[in-house]
Amino acid sequence: MPRRSDARERMVRSAAELLREHGASATSIDLVLAHSGAPRGSVYHHFPGGRTQLIEEAVALSGDFIADLIDAAEPLAVIDKFFALWRRWLVDSDFRAGCPIVSVTVANETPRLAADAFGRWTDGLAASFAEHGVPAARARRLATFVIAAVEGAVVMCRAERSLAPLEAAAGEINELLTHTLRK
Amino acid sequence: MPRRSDARERMVRSAAELLREHGASATSIDLVLAHSGAPRGSVYHHFPGGRTQLIEEAVALSGDFIADLIDAAEPLAVIDKFFALWRRWLVDSDFRAGCPIVSVTVANETPRLAADAFGRWTDGLAASFAEHGVPAARARRLATFVIAAVEGAVVMCRAERSLAPLEAAAGEINELLTHTLRK
Repeated sequence: MPRRSDARERMVRSAAELLREHGASATSIDLVLAHSGAPRGSVYHHFPGGRTQLIEEAVALSGDFIADLIDAAEPLAVIDKFFALWRRWLVDSDFRAGCPIVSVTVANETPRLAADAFGRWTDGLAASFAEHGVPAARARRLATFVIAAVEGAVVMCRAERSLAPLEAAAGEINELLTHTLRK
Repeated sequence: MPRRSDARERMVRSAAELLREHGASATSIDLVLAHSGAPRGSVYHHFPGGRTQLIEEAVALSGDFIADLIDAAEPLAVIDKFFALWRRWLVDSDFRAGCPIVSVTVANETPRLAADAFGRWTDGLAASFAEHGVPAARARRLATFVIAAVEGAVVMCRAERSLAPLEAAAGEINELLTHTLRK
């Protein structure tokens, strides 16, 4: 029999997966229960704040995952990991799953938590660029630009059902960083 | 009394506006009728394909608008217009409205028409870059990258309720194009 905390964790993970593929408006408690197999009675036990709390935790989980990845490596390696992950997520979902942070943002849901996630990624990448010789103001601008380009490319890949936009962004970003970061 | 065709046009424009702010899942026939003030009886008269046709026409209208803008000017002027439009749309909507093509893509609705729009913008921008001395393969990669960065920056602006991500993208893109396009 699964431990009680398993149902909680499965629901947050299911919510994150559903946000990626179905968007925020469509990610209801019913859909999360069906996807996670968690018992209905556990919803308000684990999430007294209901759907809002569940969505917020899914956004935080997804934000943390990328933030941890950014904090762990030097900039070109982080960028490579970013692109490798997105190639896999896009292909594995047959180009149906995108970024859950983008999903909640375009539905105008929990913008503060989405801004927290984008902000932490930008801070982490900017710090990493600054450590490699990029002046602080440019490092922040460049970090924002790189994250924007990756997020936009993922949306374009979903529309085109092709990795071409992601590969275009990867090529341009690699060239730009190779010229900009201290060797 | 408004002409019959007015109701049709108002419904398509309303659908486009609603897609920008509420996303595709939330853009129902009811919401379009309420927003446009069109009579319910006119829906299947003007749109025999129902909601799907209405959403498709809204996507096509929005795609055409940007495609026409790209075809009309030289690359740095196009980019400036792009950013000026987005600054205005974001501020006027209090950061609630984004790109309708992104809205339908993240909801996995009409991906083919979204891909058409992205493809036409990429073709137009790539042709414009190629006319200004960028080799064809690089021109296409660069055009895709620029469109991705603008779309991603708009999403980040909505989350952060600030133009900062758009200004970061504008600064980086201007610098990149200044170095890349033939003087």
